[in-house]
Amino acid sequence: MTTLSNTRTVRIEWGDCDPAGHIYYPRYFEIFDASTSALFERATGMTKMQLLKTFNFTGYPLARTHARFLRPTHFGDDVTVETKVSFGRSSFEIEHRLSLNGETCVECSEIRVWVVRDLDGRLKSHPLPEAVLAKFNLSASA
Amino acid sequence: MTTLSNTRTVRIEWGDCDPAGHIYYPRYFEIFDASTSALFERATGMTKMQLLKTFNFTGYPLARTHARFLRPTHFGDDVTVETKVSFGRSSFEIEHRLSLNGETCVECSEIRVWVVRDLDGRLKSHPLPEAVLAKFNLSASA
Amino acid sequence: MTTLSNTRTVRIEWGDCDPAGHIYYPRYFEIFDASTSALFERATGMTKMQLLKTFNFTGYPLARTHARFLRPTHFGDDVTVETKVSFGRSSFEIEHRLSLNGETCVECSEIRVWVVRDLDGRLKSHPLPEAVLAKFNLSASA
Amino acid sequence: MTTLSNTRTVRIEWGDCDPAGHIYYPRYFEIFDASTSALFERATGMTKMQLLKTFNFTGYPLARTHARFLRPTHFGDDVTVETKVSFGRSSFEIEHRLSLNGETCVECSEIRVWVVRDLDGRLKSHPLPEAVLAKFNLSASA
Repeated sequence: MTTLSNTRTVRIEWGDCDPAGHIYYPRYFEIFDASTSALFERATGMTKMQLLKTFNFTGYPLARTHARFLRPTHFGDDVTVETKVSFGRSSFEIEHRLSLNGETCVECSEIRVWVVRDLDGRLKSHPLPEAVLAKFNLSASA
Repeated sequence: MTTLSNTRTVRIEWGDCDPAGHIYYPRYFEIFDASTSALFERATGMTKMQLLKTFNFTGYPLARTHARFLRPTHFGDDVTVETKVSFGRSSFEIEHRLSLNGETCVECSEIRVWVVRDLDGRLKSHPLPEAVLAKFNLSASA
Repeated sequence: MTTLSNTRTVRIEWGDCDPAGHIYYPRYFEIFDASTSALFERATGMTKMQLLKTFNFTGYPLARTHARFLRPTHFGDDVTVETKVSFGRSSFEIEHRLSLNGETCVECSEIRVWVVRDLDGRLKSHPLPEAVLAKFNLSASA
Repeated sequence: MTTLSNTRTVRIEWGDCDPAGHIYYPRYFEIFDASTSALFERATGMTKMQLLKTFNFTGYPLARTHARFLRPTHFGDDVTVETKVSFGRSSFEIEHRLSLNGETCVECSEIRVWVVRDLDGRLKSHPLPEAVLAKFNLSASA
């Protein structure tokens, strides 16, 4: 099993917030999805578009996600998102911790599956390429 | 404990979908949030805006949500969302089942909390008003 | 030149609205884009996915859009969107009028281009298929 | 008349893009709205939340917007957004230029109105506070 983490800062915008003045919670999942991409980009040096082309896969859609909302966030907040990955064979687990000034606001765990499209157009799971895993190993030990 | 359910149909739009051609999963949470509002509207006969004014509360934000993604959906799909509620004292559990042609695509369960704003502007949980619960009982037995 | 119009009702949701309590204006463009698709679906009897497959094109992206915001809308509002099209050779003009209780809230005009992907993957404009235009003529005279 | 400009970089994300692989155009308006906030923040040193509290206004909603889409953008693109403002008495004009590698992809102009809520809850335009304008003058001459 290999792991790597990435941390980034995200500004919560006016348009992310609802009439109660807090972030509208589906926006968290947009932030987390982009954080997963950012982690892969950090490890591999490739954007998601480059990854898709290089490794000829369709994506890493979610099998499940579980989020706990502990404290609200508001527009103007610069939140920190820490993202960690643990790899299985054809799936991986992602954990996101979104915090503000050191206090956890949201915790989220995801199971994602590496998928390819088979000849009749259906998605099916596929083992993660060794070359992708190697990038994470390399990064983890660097 | 009282329960009630509501079912509605939602069209998955082009703009809800990602470059793989499937719905971008944070959109499901927008659909589920609106489905929760639709359930309250069906039971009480009030839109969320009317509810907020009538019962002088701030909202029913999520404490947690858990979703399982079983089958992808695509733009042009008219999906069915069944939403059920079970009430606690100041929180309630919502279950959504999103299906296409009778096959479950996504299952989601939420814990939401009825909140009011106290004098110094902070959110705190509050027992659900009897008048709201009564509407659900009435609906359930109707 | 052929024309056709379609009218649909859209619920403004809590999650469409910003901390001022009004719709967050980019959501109007999501509503208008879906209204354009709804107009094509009404005229041709095909969803956008079916259209793309049947007529082997990539889409009808915008060349420009111009919107005037006259009155705010709020969550819980059921707004009416009237959408009209005027066809050129490889482009068309769409006009949307979004109203609430008969009062215009937003007016929007769009120029969209029918595009195909050429052999090296670039988008280029293409005359609208006769079969598509015929559907609109048929609908207009029906 | 005073002017000021701000430039920022925005990553186009997977979830911003549609099944054709390009950005879904309503996302541009989210980018532009946040760019307007970023310009105010740069000039005043206050986030939008701080501005709203300090100057006791409701927002600066759009009266109109006009956008021209010249080149598509894709997920993984880091686009540059230049935003300029010209102030009137109770309204202001914003111009955004979104470019990739020096080539303009989208041009957008907005008219926005400084609004306050009157005693019966309605929005009405209000002259921009001198203290806000002074911040822009100061910034422009700095």
